Amino acid sequence: MVVKVYGPEYASSKRVLVCLVEKEIEFEAVDINLFKGENKSLDYLKLQPFGLLPAIQDGDYTLYESRAIIRYYAEKYRSQGTELFGKTMEEKGKVEQWLEVEAHNFQPPLYTLVLHIVFSSKMGITPDQNVIQENEVKLGKVLDIYEERLSTSKYLVGDFFSLADLSHLPFGYYLLNGVGKGYMIRDRKHVSAWWDVISNRPSWKKVVQLFPYPI
Amino acid sequence: MVVKVYGPEYASSKRVLVCLVEKEIEFEAVDINLFKGENKSLDYLKLQPFGLLPAIQDGDYTLYESRAIIRYYAEKYRSQGTELFGKTMEEKGKVEQWLEVEAHNFQPPLYTLVLHIVFSSKMGITPDQNVIQENEVKLGKVLDIYEERLSTSKYLVGDFFSLADLSHLPFGYYLLNGVGKGYMIRDRKHVSAWWDVISNRPSWKKVVQLFPYPI
Repeated sequence: MVVKVYGPEYASSKRVLVCLVEKEIEFEAVDINLFKGENKSLDYLKLQPFGLLPAIQDGDYTLYESRAIIRYYAEKYRSQGTELFGKTMEEKGKVEQWLEVEAHNFQPPLYTLVLHIVFSSKMGITPDQNVIQENEVKLGKVLDIYEERLSTSKYLVGDFFSLADLSHLPFGYYLLNGVGKGYMIRDRKHVSAWWDVISNRPSWKKVVQLFPYPI
Repeated sequence: MVVKVYGPEYASSKRVLVCLVEKEIEFEAVDINLFKGENKSLDYLKLQPFGLLPAIQDGDYTLYESRAIIRYYAEKYRSQGTELFGKTMEEKGKVEQWLEVEAHNFQPPLYTLVLHIVFSSKMGITPDQNVIQENEVKLGKVLDIYEERLSTSKYLVGDFFSLADLSHLPFGYYLLNGVGKGYMIRDRKHVSAWWDVISNRPSWKKVVQLFPYPI
């Protein structure tokens, strides 16, 4: 069954796409234009009642929330493509831990930077320099902890690429492109090396090439 | 092995505790006083480098982020105590979806209400009525979607209590106690019935009785 992925150009949808490529799962993309409000159409709201991207349709089965979707496919096709949860239950626990750190520590300040710097004009938001400054400081403190972690480990959980690393790609990309604060990664030796390794994976390059970011 | 849970009185730690009770896993609590800054002690930062609660220690294994910890135990002890992930991969996918909805749609506006209404004086925050109003509206819209979902299903995923329902208990409790906006639950018939069912589980009553909320 080919998986339909809604809204492939947007960052959170790319989290799903890169996972599907790593797991060698066939998919097709269905365009949803946020700027035209297509995410609030009645048809889309039947799939995703909050009107958020992404959602997937896999035969009769539908699912939303990008980090739920990637967990579902990483587990359902555990032995196909790249193993993204590690080998043991304990490694999987740590993958879950770093997935949560991505969602609750890394993404929120970065999302605010993206909103105020990249999307502000298109979304009618006046960029607030205090908010930008505050969130750069927050994100910097988070990245300092990543730097320490990555000084003893090639990837976040250990010596293997996992769902936790993968989950950082869509918004990490914005930090270097669009937000224009790539120095936050480059000034941290181990974060920088990690970023190069994960962002050079063929899966990620393919996703960005197939579905360019909207801005 | 008895699981050590750090900071049992705080809301996010209760997510772990209620899961351990449902899974019939023995634990012991280790006090960490946020108001005295014990979460920033060097010893605690070794366990949880972001200085957040909770963290657990299980023999040599340590883990943090409440929703990672509950996933780990719900899976490791899948056949012990209450089955919290459903029976099929597809049910588990939906449990993951609603866990993410709890984390990204339900908790953020409610957390802001808790901060401004319950913790403001203790944390030196001036309650901002505009912020309170705005987040009540946000949370209301989220609960409207829950109301629709729960009109066709006893629990969030289906006819079984899951990790997704469980994850709502610690902050849902604040909405009725402390925040003083229980009407947001009571004015929605199906949300109200669901809340009664999940908050009357012996596991939750035990956790609240053993470890009263700090405020």
